[in-house]
Amino acid sequence: MTQQSPEDAFARIDAIFRPRSVAVVGASANPDSPGYDYVKSLQDFGFRGGIYPVNPKGGEILGLPVSASFGEIRGDVDYVISCIPSDHILELVRECGERNVKALQLFTGRFSETGRAEGAALERQLLQTARDAGVRLIGPNCMGLLYPAHGISFRGDMSREAGNVGFLSQSGNLLFEITHYGGPRGLRFSKAISYGNGVDLDESDFTSYFGADPETKVVGAYVEGVRDGRRFLDALRRAAAGKPVVVLKGGRTGAGGRAAASHTAALAGTAAVWEAALRQAGCLSVGTVEELIDMLIAFSRMRPGTGTRLGMVGSGGGRSVLTADLCEELGLAVPPLPSDIEAKVAERTPDLAGWLTNPVDQSILAGSGLGGGRVLEWFDESPEIDLLLANMNEAWAFGRPNVEEILPRVADRFVGVGARTKKPFAVVLGPSDYAEEDRWRLVSDMRERLAGAGLAVYPSVERAVHALAAHTKYWQRRDS
Amino acid sequence: MTQQSPEDAFARIDAIFRPRSVAVVGASANPDSPGYDYVKSLQDFGFRGGIYPVNPKGGEILGLPVSASFGEIRGDVDYVISCIPSDHILELVRECGERNVKALQLFTGRFSETGRAEGAALERQLLQTARDAGVRLIGPNCMGLLYPAHGISFRGDMSREAGNVGFLSQSGNLLFEITHYGGPRGLRFSKAISYGNGVDLDESDFTSYFGADPETKVVGAYVEGVRDGRRFLDALRRAAAGKPVVVLKGGRTGAGGRAAASHTAALAGTAAVWEAALRQAGCLSVGTVEELIDMLIAFSRMRPGTGTRLGMVGSGGGRSVLTADLCEELGLAVPPLPSDIEAKVAERTPDLAGWLTNPVDQSILAGSGLGGGRVLEWFDESPEIDLLLANMNEAWAFGRPNVEEILPRVADRFVGVGARTKKPFAVVLGPSDYAEEDRWRLVSDMRERLAGAGLAVYPSVERAVHALAAHTKYWQRRDS
Repeated sequence: MTQQSPEDAFARIDAIFRPRSVAVVGASANPDSPGYDYVKSLQDFGFRGGIYPVNPKGGEILGLPVSASFGEIRGDVDYVISCIPSDHILELVRECGERNVKALQLFTGRFSETGRAEGAALERQLLQTARDAGVRLIGPNCMGLLYPAHGISFRGDMSREAGNVGFLSQSGNLLFEITHYGGPRGLRFSKAISYGNGVDLDESDFTSYFGADPETKVVGAYVEGVRDGRRFLDALRRAAAGKPVVVLKGGRTGAGGRAAASHTAALAGTAAVWEAALRQAGCLSVGTVEELIDMLIAFSRMRPGTGTRLGMVGSGGGRSVLTADLCEELGLAVPPLPSDIEAKVAERTPDLAGWLTNPVDQSILAGSGLGGGRVLEWFDESPEIDLLLANMNEAWAFGRPNVEEILPRVADRFVGVGARTKKPFAVVLGPSDYAEEDRWRLVSDMRERLAGAGLAVYPSVERAVHALAAHTKYWQRRDS
Repeated sequence: MTQQSPEDAFARIDAIFRPRSVAVVGASANPDSPGYDYVKSLQDFGFRGGIYPVNPKGGEILGLPVSASFGEIRGDVDYVISCIPSDHILELVRECGERNVKALQLFTGRFSETGRAEGAALERQLLQTARDAGVRLIGPNCMGLLYPAHGISFRGDMSREAGNVGFLSQSGNLLFEITHYGGPRGLRFSKAISYGNGVDLDESDFTSYFGADPETKVVGAYVEGVRDGRRFLDALRRAAAGKPVVVLKGGRTGAGGRAAASHTAALAGTAAVWEAALRQAGCLSVGTVEELIDMLIAFSRMRPGTGTRLGMVGSGGGRSVLTADLCEELGLAVPPLPSDIEAKVAERTPDLAGWLTNPVDQSILAGSGLGGGRVLEWFDESPEIDLLLANMNEAWAFGRPNVEEILPRVADRFVGVGARTKKPFAVVLGPSDYAEEDRWRLVSDMRERLAGAGLAVYPSVERAVHALAAHTKYWQRRDS
């Protein structure tokens, strides 16, 4: 890394994220190949600049004329994606230098991650050649950029909607997973990058970039190994001073570290050291992909808040009991109904006064004329409640003959509270694992309605409570 | 409880589970009422005995003639379900006694769970009246029986397929949730019971029953409070000596205990005491509904095993790294490829020898002609691997043009291994949370194929690893 001002560094990476034209070297007409995927993804995402496929066979790919060599492309090329084998890579780097390409991204692999001396030697040559040619590298052994607002993706089936999460991932596959499973819950990215072996631009560069990026409100990272620990922690600290940063560290153990070496040639590090360092840098450290997705959704969709008193509606008896247990075990409080709400219950449904408690047992409400959505509104208004948790409880609703009316009505109520609340608010709706099409469609529509309104949706009460607890602790730590 | 031999006790409850005829007192023609649900569920489940709806209005419900009073029913009644208000309950109990009804199940609530003195007093009278009349009670404040093989259910949309899990739940709603979310993954019940306040037949009775029941291979329990701790622990110990017993305890904390009081009037108890007692009784204690479902599926579908060396296929690089980490953190081992498999890799794909490791990174296999399914078969054959974990990895597959071929082919391979392996084996397939119908259908079909073949399917790698680790520890403890 050459020394440069933070502003310069930001501008350089920002320019890489906004190429005016992209060449795909090793483009292919075979739909089952990365050289096809990259071209198709740029088209699918509506990339407005030039797309230049390169393949010695020439011809056409997806309606675009194919240049037989990189040198044959007419016009400027800002960004190059390489899908060619590693034994031709050095020549391509030199050509990129000659044409003033800003960055070369290498899907191309078979470098140090193979664990073989020749792979590692080639990787060193790659870096040196790029330095000499003045070309920045992304990768090798990576998927590259996702920037929906600029029409850039490495896969056509990711969401084209822009969001506020910036994500850096040493693994392309993990980035797939996060977009795939987080997508239906409304997880949307400002920009993301899979950077693989990270020989040139690395985790520190991208962390600094997302930290400074005005389009990014929350930073997420999946990191296996780190080139320069001090530099990375410094970048994390600066980013975390301005926005939430969630880090999932891979290679925390002997077995994980061994797997990381064969994946991205990363030298991992012990779990305890990382955990302490991340905490000190002001980041939230998570241990699993599920937690990672849940916390990115929390920070990107819930309001900040430090209070611990939770009000919950929508569950039956057993679930209410278990939720209270879990909350208390995770440091949240589940107080009895606040006196202002007790008074409203007594006025409206005297029969339930002194019996109904928090969490509100939905089966006690049955037939009373008082609904969970209304109590949720009262929780929102009460000064004695800090956190809101609402369960769609579709398992119960599917047992009712009017489930098609119940669920949309409940969802609308939750959406209404979500629009005006100043409190962290999590909604629970289970997975759409139905064999029946009508059930799938109804639950799927509800998820779209809730997530589409900006709510933080969790697939189980357990995960919602974990997210609320971690979210609260994070803001408490920031406050202290 | 009167003293009786274990055989007598078993026979009595077994007879309750197998009534020849059922009366629903407080039956209703309103489809949005429990008095309708019970009649409909018996019909939906194909109950072959007499179904007698009772309602002063008379008429017909779902094609059945309605008796205006309980006394008017002609023929024997073995089992009575009460949906009438609590103020008429004592009279019904006496009538049941006169007609030699074996058991009366009370959906009817508003007893001690209201926290009011009059409710508690009525509950005491209820029990005394039942004792005097010689009628056994289930409940009050509960949903009652599920026994698919005998055509009994309290909800029409549960699976009619018989399974090997016996479940007792103080909460009816929780039983809904477990069947709802466990169902698509193949969780099937021999019998289950929601017993609410449990004033007469209680957690000890049902635990003993399931422990002795030849149709039940695994026992699950959701318990809030316990009538007689010593008796319950004794029942658990006896059951756990013969089959796995998984217990979820509600009301472990102050807030949870308060919720439990208003739910089933249960006096809970501290978490630490319960945890220790359950462990000593040989049970597996779990903390959440997700874990409960996951472990019931593990015990009901996976082979026992005590070895800790896990072999994994089907994931990309980052996921492989994280899985190795999680395994090691939970006490499982992820050894490098065993030498017998190394030799096979070297013979078949020399190019990958010494690079490919365990977990098998699917992206390294790409284009090599060697598939994850084949390596899974090698893991199964290897004496150096004890546990199998296979990821369908549909997040990746949906990026390929031939996903419709890939997933069924992979599933069939996993099913083949499942049919012959002697090792605990978990398969991962994510939720069907797709907005696109074709994606939902494909993943849903795959789940059906995997679960239908008897495999243990988990919705995430995290949950599969947790289940494998807990399963292994359980069998190690049994062995020692």
